[in-house]
Amino acid sequence: MPKPIITLTTDFGLSDHYVGTMKGVILKICPQARIVDITHDVRPFEIGEGAYAIAQAYSYFPKKTVHVVVVDPGVGTARRPILVEAAGQLFVAPDNGVLAMVYGRETHKVRLISNERCFLKPVSRTFHGRDIFSPVAAHLAAGVAPARTGKLVKDYLRPVFEKPLRTGKRSWMGRILKIDRFGNVVTNFHAGEFADLERKNFELKLGPLSVGVLARSYAECGPGELFAIVGSGGYLEVSVGQASAAGKIGCETGAAVELTVW
Amino acid sequence: MPKPIITLTTDFGLSDHYVGTMKGVILKICPQARIVDITHDVRPFEIGEGAYAIAQAYSYFPKKTVHVVVVDPGVGTARRPILVEAAGQLFVAPDNGVLAMVYGRETHKVRLISNERCFLKPVSRTFHGRDIFSPVAAHLAAGVAPARTGKLVKDYLRPVFEKPLRTGKRSWMGRILKIDRFGNVVTNFHAGEFADLERKNFELKLGPLSVGVLARSYAECGPGELFAIVGSGGYLEVSVGQASAAGKIGCETGAAVELTVW
Amino acid sequence: MPKPIITLTTDFGLSDHYVGTMKGVILKICPQARIVDITHDVRPFEIGEGAYAIAQAYSYFPKKTVHVVVVDPGVGTARRPILVEAAGQLFVAPDNGVLAMVYGRETHKVRLISNERCFLKPVSRTFHGRDIFSPVAAHLAAGVAPARTGKLVKDYLRPVFEKPLRTGKRSWMGRILKIDRFGNVVTNFHAGEFADLERKNFELKLGPLSVGVLARSYAECGPGELFAIVGSGGYLEVSVGQASAAGKIGCETGAAVELTVW
Repeated sequence: MPKPIITLTTDFGLSDHYVGTMKGVILKICPQARIVDITHDVRPFEIGEGAYAIAQAYSYFPKKTVHVVVVDPGVGTARRPILVEAAGQLFVAPDNGVLAMVYGRETHKVRLISNERCFLKPVSRTFHGRDIFSPVAAHLAAGVAPARTGKLVKDYLRPVFEKPLRTGKRSWMGRILKIDRFGNVVTNFHAGEFADLERKNFELKLGPLSVGVLARSYAECGPGELFAIVGSGGYLEVSVGQASAAGKIGCETGAAVELTVW
Repeated sequence: MPKPIITLTTDFGLSDHYVGTMKGVILKICPQARIVDITHDVRPFEIGEGAYAIAQAYSYFPKKTVHVVVVDPGVGTARRPILVEAAGQLFVAPDNGVLAMVYGRETHKVRLISNERCFLKPVSRTFHGRDIFSPVAAHLAAGVAPARTGKLVKDYLRPVFEKPLRTGKRSWMGRILKIDRFGNVVTNFHAGEFADLERKNFELKLGPLSVGVLARSYAECGPGELFAIVGSGGYLEVSVGQASAAGKIGCETGAAVELTVW
Repeated sequence: MPKPIITLTTDFGLSDHYVGTMKGVILKICPQARIVDITHDVRPFEIGEGAYAIAQAYSYFPKKTVHVVVVDPGVGTARRPILVEAAGQLFVAPDNGVLAMVYGRETHKVRLISNERCFLKPVSRTFHGRDIFSPVAAHLAAGVAPARTGKLVKDYLRPVFEKPLRTGKRSWMGRILKIDRFGNVVTNFHAGEFADLERKNFELKLGPLSVGVLARSYAECGPGELFAIVGSGGYLEVSVGQASAAGKIGCETGAAVELTVW
């Protein structure tokens, strides 16, 4: 029987003991758990970046995987811990919208985590990753039924920051979802919603710059040349041959991107 | 039967092959070992930071966990490798004070590691993390008795840099233990030794700045407001709402902090 | 029976979901695999740095380990995925020279990976780490025979950037292989090829600076003093006591280094 898998996505970084401590808590409760880091370098407090990271990764994991997602500027306040059942997997996170992109893609049920028997006591007001989210995930991985963590709720936070806004017959306003390690600028224009882009003309505008070339691989265009490409998650990206597009453009996550197609 | 757990805390960073190589060495000797990274981003040669990281994490791991702690500016010199038995766990490290905060909290026995049959041969003069500490930890995880690694010693290095110094009836001089990923400034004033701080007046002085507000959660104070908070390890921290306190104050690990309570 | 081990060496960094996604793909195909990160901080597109990282680490892993090495500026182009059998281990990588240092040390067989049944479908043009290299490695770890991935080839890319060039009776021209986390400057002069360096006079020239002292440990020379040392991989390194030699010298990976011995 395969071992249960728990993934971790946080803004805790790797320079502190925080992530290691969470893993100790998990292994104490569920010694057989396999723990996989998605990323811990979500920029501090950037809920949207955490939402993007987990949304890009979860579908590649086996059924029953438990995903812990902690980007949690409201730790210690009234914001609630939730458990989401979606796609045959489980997601444990604060109710602050960090699972919004999962909601947008999957039918889902949301529970308010209230069963304190699943917590590490005493619960601090500053590190729920250690005291609530990790132990709850470990109990779930060890076989505790989702229904035992708490009741279904309907009033969970559901921000709608994911989708581009249509601004004209042929134009949309989107935003930068993420700038990746290579400086690729990932927009929230999903290729699946813009059919046949390869056979049309288009213009992507980011600040003063404009891109109208669609490449099929990163290496297709020359060094320094700006181009668009459908990235591995299906989103339109803006890239530069063997250099950082974000560095060239001077843009940041969240910034506006205009798309015109004709 | 649960698999043995080995944790790693080093200043090796993650950009080289060093940590991966240590894991290979461990798995060759003890294939069933679970390896957990606490952190590898202790600042180079900063023994105090390594001491803090392992001290914050170890108690969250199961009994019998073997902790490898390698912040080792004296590698290849006469400084000795040691094995510490404390809290039902094992700690393998150079004898340079990196386990001082564990000594301060737990009754402990210290052994001088001398059994070369537990080493990887030939032992280099530059990478004992690979050649001594990892293989010794793996042998211990695989069941070798601590007594077989070497004899008990009393003359291990025991720096006393952990505790604040009382400087007056109502005042203490402490220091900054760590600046974390979020820019929280962790001091060595432990809340457990300053009872009822919540109902008293206090002043924390760091350089030119002074803090007298005690928050209960990071999100309680407004953006940009400086406050103190009892962090997840029990130490007083200085923080700023959704920003870096260390950046605002301009301070570094090791710097002095004055506390006055009345 | 020991669990199969898969190592990962990439330039993907840890700030994106890319590495976590690869691990999900692996665990879905081979749930029992142990996954070990060598490093993901190879500088983007720097094939030579990736070649160095895996070459330093592989021999410390057990037989049958499957190493995935993805530094792949040509992803999505005609460059081919290959499987290399060497030293009783397996290496999965793009055919771009990233395994050159393994070729230089071990007898080896190279296969062109062509069996699409081992791929994740549909195969993207931008993320073969996820769609080709990880699933192939997972199938191999799960017991698929190397011969089933594809046919042996002879025309794989074999750059010869590894060895220093002899430029005179007593002089060689080498290069900087890597600058490590501590700022140690690792050259491609291997101590094994320069016998008795300890009893000879030598001069290492990097830009305007020259080093003629061979230390036996990093701590042997005083703070700020420049010295050479045989590093843990056997290569001559240039170091500074408790500081960054690369910072002091102002040099970069790939730069020329002259060695004269007399």
